[in-house]
Amino acid sequence: MRCYRLEKGGHLDGIVPREEPMPTPKPTDILVRVHAVSLNRRDALILHERYPLPSAPDVIPISDGAGEVVAVGAEVTRFQVGDRIVGGYWPRWHDGRLRPELLDQPGCTLDGMLTEYALLDQQWAVHVPGHLSWAEAATLPCAGVTAWNSIVGGEPLRPGQTVLTLGTGSVSLFALQFAKMLGCRVISTTSSKIKAGRLKALGADHVINYIDTPEWGQAVRELTEGRGADLIVETNGPATIEQSVRAAALYGQIVLLAVSAPTSRSHIEISGEAYGSTLATIRRIFAGNRADHEAMNQAISAHHLRPVIDRVFGFAETHDAFTYYLGSKPFGKVIIRID
Amino acid sequence: MRCYRLEKGGHLDGIVPREEPMPTPKPTDILVRVHAVSLNRRDALILHERYPLPSAPDVIPISDGAGEVVAVGAEVTRFQVGDRIVGGYWPRWHDGRLRPELLDQPGCTLDGMLTEYALLDQQWAVHVPGHLSWAEAATLPCAGVTAWNSIVGGEPLRPGQTVLTLGTGSVSLFALQFAKMLGCRVISTTSSKIKAGRLKALGADHVINYIDTPEWGQAVRELTEGRGADLIVETNGPATIEQSVRAAALYGQIVLLAVSAPTSRSHIEISGEAYGSTLATIRRIFAGNRADHEAMNQAISAHHLRPVIDRVFGFAETHDAFTYYLGSKPFGKVIIRID
Amino acid sequence: MRCYRLEKGGHLDGIVPREEPMPTPKPTDILVRVHAVSLNRRDALILHERYPLPSAPDVIPISDGAGEVVAVGAEVTRFQVGDRIVGGYWPRWHDGRLRPELLDQPGCTLDGMLTEYALLDQQWAVHVPGHLSWAEAATLPCAGVTAWNSIVGGEPLRPGQTVLTLGTGSVSLFALQFAKMLGCRVISTTSSKIKAGRLKALGADHVINYIDTPEWGQAVRELTEGRGADLIVETNGPATIEQSVRAAALYGQIVLLAVSAPTSRSHIEISGEAYGSTLATIRRIFAGNRADHEAMNQAISAHHLRPVIDRVFGFAETHDAFTYYLGSKPFGKVIIRID
Amino acid sequence: MRCYRLEKGGHLDGIVPREEPMPTPKPTDILVRVHAVSLNRRDALILHERYPLPSAPDVIPISDGAGEVVAVGAEVTRFQVGDRIVGGYWPRWHDGRLRPELLDQPGCTLDGMLTEYALLDQQWAVHVPGHLSWAEAATLPCAGVTAWNSIVGGEPLRPGQTVLTLGTGSVSLFALQFAKMLGCRVISTTSSKIKAGRLKALGADHVINYIDTPEWGQAVRELTEGRGADLIVETNGPATIEQSVRAAALYGQIVLLAVSAPTSRSHIEISGEAYGSTLATIRRIFAGNRADHEAMNQAISAHHLRPVIDRVFGFAETHDAFTYYLGSKPFGKVIIRID
Repeated sequence: MRCYRLEKGGHLDGIVPREEPMPTPKPTDILVRVHAVSLNRRDALILHERYPLPSAPDVIPISDGAGEVVAVGAEVTRFQVGDRIVGGYWPRWHDGRLRPELLDQPGCTLDGMLTEYALLDQQWAVHVPGHLSWAEAATLPCAGVTAWNSIVGGEPLRPGQTVLTLGTGSVSLFALQFAKMLGCRVISTTSSKIKAGRLKALGADHVINYIDTPEWGQAVRELTEGRGADLIVETNGPATIEQSVRAAALYGQIVLLAVSAPTSRSHIEISGEAYGSTLATIRRIFAGNRADHEAMNQAISAHHLRPVIDRVFGFAETHDAFTYYLGSKPFGKVIIRID
Repeated sequence: MRCYRLEKGGHLDGIVPREEPMPTPKPTDILVRVHAVSLNRRDALILHERYPLPSAPDVIPISDGAGEVVAVGAEVTRFQVGDRIVGGYWPRWHDGRLRPELLDQPGCTLDGMLTEYALLDQQWAVHVPGHLSWAEAATLPCAGVTAWNSIVGGEPLRPGQTVLTLGTGSVSLFALQFAKMLGCRVISTTSSKIKAGRLKALGADHVINYIDTPEWGQAVRELTEGRGADLIVETNGPATIEQSVRAAALYGQIVLLAVSAPTSRSHIEISGEAYGSTLATIRRIFAGNRADHEAMNQAISAHHLRPVIDRVFGFAETHDAFTYYLGSKPFGKVIIRID
Repeated sequence: MRCYRLEKGGHLDGIVPREEPMPTPKPTDILVRVHAVSLNRRDALILHERYPLPSAPDVIPISDGAGEVVAVGAEVTRFQVGDRIVGGYWPRWHDGRLRPELLDQPGCTLDGMLTEYALLDQQWAVHVPGHLSWAEAATLPCAGVTAWNSIVGGEPLRPGQTVLTLGTGSVSLFALQFAKMLGCRVISTTSSKIKAGRLKALGADHVINYIDTPEWGQAVRELTEGRGADLIVETNGPATIEQSVRAAALYGQIVLLAVSAPTSRSHIEISGEAYGSTLATIRRIFAGNRADHEAMNQAISAHHLRPVIDRVFGFAETHDAFTYYLGSKPFGKVIIRID
Repeated sequence: MRCYRLEKGGHLDGIVPREEPMPTPKPTDILVRVHAVSLNRRDALILHERYPLPSAPDVIPISDGAGEVVAVGAEVTRFQVGDRIVGGYWPRWHDGRLRPELLDQPGCTLDGMLTEYALLDQQWAVHVPGHLSWAEAATLPCAGVTAWNSIVGGEPLRPGQTVLTLGTGSVSLFALQFAKMLGCRVISTTSSKIKAGRLKALGADHVINYIDTPEWGQAVRELTEGRGADLIVETNGPATIEQSVRAAALYGQIVLLAVSAPTSRSHIEISGEAYGSTLATIRRIFAGNRADHEAMNQAISAHHLRPVIDRVFGFAETHDAFTYYLGSKPFGKVIIRID
């Protein structure tokens, strides 16, 4: 079978194609023919050795992949041959709270999904909503679950409340879609007129151009009769947190996903002037557990939600996919197909 | 001005029309020209002296009414002449928890809304969503807020979860509408084919005929792949609680609104067999406070929700309205217009 | 090694001593030399074939036991030889919510702890607080965790609020101890003057004799300036629920542990009169998960809490232990020592 | 009667004694003979015109005071002559959430308590726990309620969990006392050996000298077996937030009370390195509402908690009291007695 392995960090050339023998399932394993993977920022951080968890040597990259079960070990009860699955982002974290002993991640401490065939313990995988393509399914484990928990993981949102999303990364787009599902108004930001149109097509009630309106925190207040946004999915942390706090309602929630940035400020900084006049909470999310993923799947199935895909690359174009993902500003997910 | 007063309980004839002098606002009062009221079960219970709170002598009946502010006292800040308002169901309960000293209710311990002109302390009223007619606005204080808190007042519902409503009373219809707003699936029950169609038109995903399917608790489980309903708005208590418990998911919520019945069983009875195998909680609701009402209004406005009205009577037809409300099984609210 | 097996349900004689070969740990197993087990009502229900889960044939009885790790499989990371552990009541339920696939229980669907040596998957066991004896440790998995979740598993209790416990079973005694830990006042009930003294010695602020005061719901209200108890650990369900509802505060919590009774009424019945005037919630508990157990251990360790033990029997006196447990009304746990 | 008024901000001399006519209660007012007031940081900020709310002209300073009801208006129902009360810190905020229209504060937008006689609407006052002196009662409205909501207002703390308090200001001391009431371990910081002893006498389990141990975030982790503190009452924000984040448990809560500082950094700054590895939430508190105050009183009464008083000044020594409060680092509250 074909796969890639991260032989040397720091440069794309370190991700090297290999031909390897087919793995054999242990009693509790499933063997999965992977059909699509999606790229996340963490995959680039791992490549560049800037991720908080240490990589296993020669690890197969990429956490998020979808495929078909083609063989099962003797003790497997959760899946049958033919089932469509995605691997979990935190495969050992099934429910409740994250704990130090559950910190493994595929594409990092464990082999990932950039391979024709992946071997997963049956507890590490999740069924895929029936209406999704392989590419769509591959978007869910990291970006989908992160957005899901951003929207539903804290103080409950009420229909008619306002959610603010920043930019057009996948987490922001999923958050927009989930917030609309919950009956909320959504305000989104972008610097592009074309993307503004696509955000509205996805359901955004208002789009703010953050170049034209650098004080968009104030603009959000004005769009909400002075109340501010009830929940803000803060995907850019160091660059935007000050405006996010200014945008927040008195009892708003700021879901702070990024706390450091490759360039410029590398930390969170909020003025006393902005934070002094609000009771807004800041909470953080590390994607989520298997139960969260399954609850999200139930919502995605009920609403026939379709994840947004920006572009699909072939398996041989893996390096191009990374380059495109990092160099352009995609609207939605970048996918690698494994035919 | 014209109004009705409950001169003698026990019989409709005790609700008597009167001609009275126009009231004058105290400094914190608003004077409201009432345009519509809606009937609730509690209005009938008060008439028949079976309500837990004692009625004031010669009280003006009916809690729920909508109208226009036509005069304001010198210290009024919340409203202006011309504002459209409804009176609160618990006018003294503004936020947080109900307390013994807040137990007043219009149409019971305080004068109600079955009058051309009502005098309300400014704290007792709530603005009306702009798209609603007078009749629609008059449906909100008791039935609307009760349904709202049934749906959003407990453990948060997630999109894709299942809500069960019973019958076609106003609380059930509002609950159906709010549950759909939140992205939930809704299963409803009725004994009428025609009403089944109307429930579906309102958004119900499944309707069970409880005459054809007396074991509808089991039917709900089958419609949910064995999981059961995540939230049940139990509007009939003594008659249906056993089936509701059987319908409930392992961690389901049963919102128990009625705990006694005019006829047959007058209490709640649940078999050990049914309740032994579930962790479902039972919670109760006494409508809600002003902050709940305002949060509901925000949702109603954002979604342009239209309350369901069964039939509208004239002011002179008040007795007919009560008779119709109690004798037929309306689909939605019964309204009295006050022209 | 010696153990007991339930060869035939329905009568104590069905619990039969055996001499069996020592079990050998698989890679993820620990081998435990059991030193003490404690009896729970469910052990008697299993014996009499009235438990909701089906027993495995010839199962080793009793869920709750404490012992020392004497051997570990090659892949074991959670424990070392010499560690003191108890087995979990729901060994597969580690965190979050109970799910159908996690329903195994030792002493029922899995072999239990009435044995000199028990083999447990490493994920099934929990460390024991250092200050506890073997007998004390054996009290925790079912009764301890049930009481813990009764007290901390719902709406949070505040210091100064009132908890009501019923009788002197182990869950009630643990609940009393945990409620005092949280700074609450505790009211307890008993029919015995001597036990009343022991309840006070454990920390109860008030004890009501339920024979002298059959309307103890009202008595609780009077002891709380009319407010009622904020949380009630309802261990007797069918016999006491009506008084518990009458004892509950407007926003009280009733933790309903028993929903059927061997004799008399076999279901939950609450009068509309009692339940009509309160917003008290009813929630249920099936013990709890491993994370709950560990949180409880942290509290027990910090407070050097000592579980209450009524009487200790020898391994050969197992039948006597059951007879005593069922026939007398112990104050705290009945233990079987396995020397 | 004698009182002080803030005639000119910016300097202590602007707080000027006056002789004024006795005020007369309106129908819903109570007249209170004030016996003691306590100083809070906000009183100094108001004096120096650096408080976010605007002061009324010639306002009577100081929010927190305790006294006896000496006269009541005709419609007063909450109090009788002879009742011991404190005025509320947010007198219009009775329950639920803070709203813009409730923002009045005594000693700022409303006349405060630095007066022999104060006139309060009956809704603005709260009864005093019976065991407290006037001076002790005067400590509660701002510092007491702030600490109470810091400890009980978020994710519930469990017995055995760890609370971290910083320094020896009144909020920190109350937080220590409330955390012990809840069965938590408390770690406190101070730079003084003498104060360390007093913190331990109040119940602190560990005291860290933050001069000797500038990396006290790490020290807290070591004292908690690597887990970190479950709740941190962050009273110094800009100066200490980085260490607080380092001290926090994976799911810790940081209650951020101060977001700007008179000198040095005037805003919140957290390194990506520290915040990147935790899911700790940050929440804020603006004291609390009347229902919070009453819940706190219930706990204080049940536990006979005694607030910590540093020093008591006479009414004529008001300027000295301010000077002492701002210039020394008191251990507990600074009081002005009004004989």
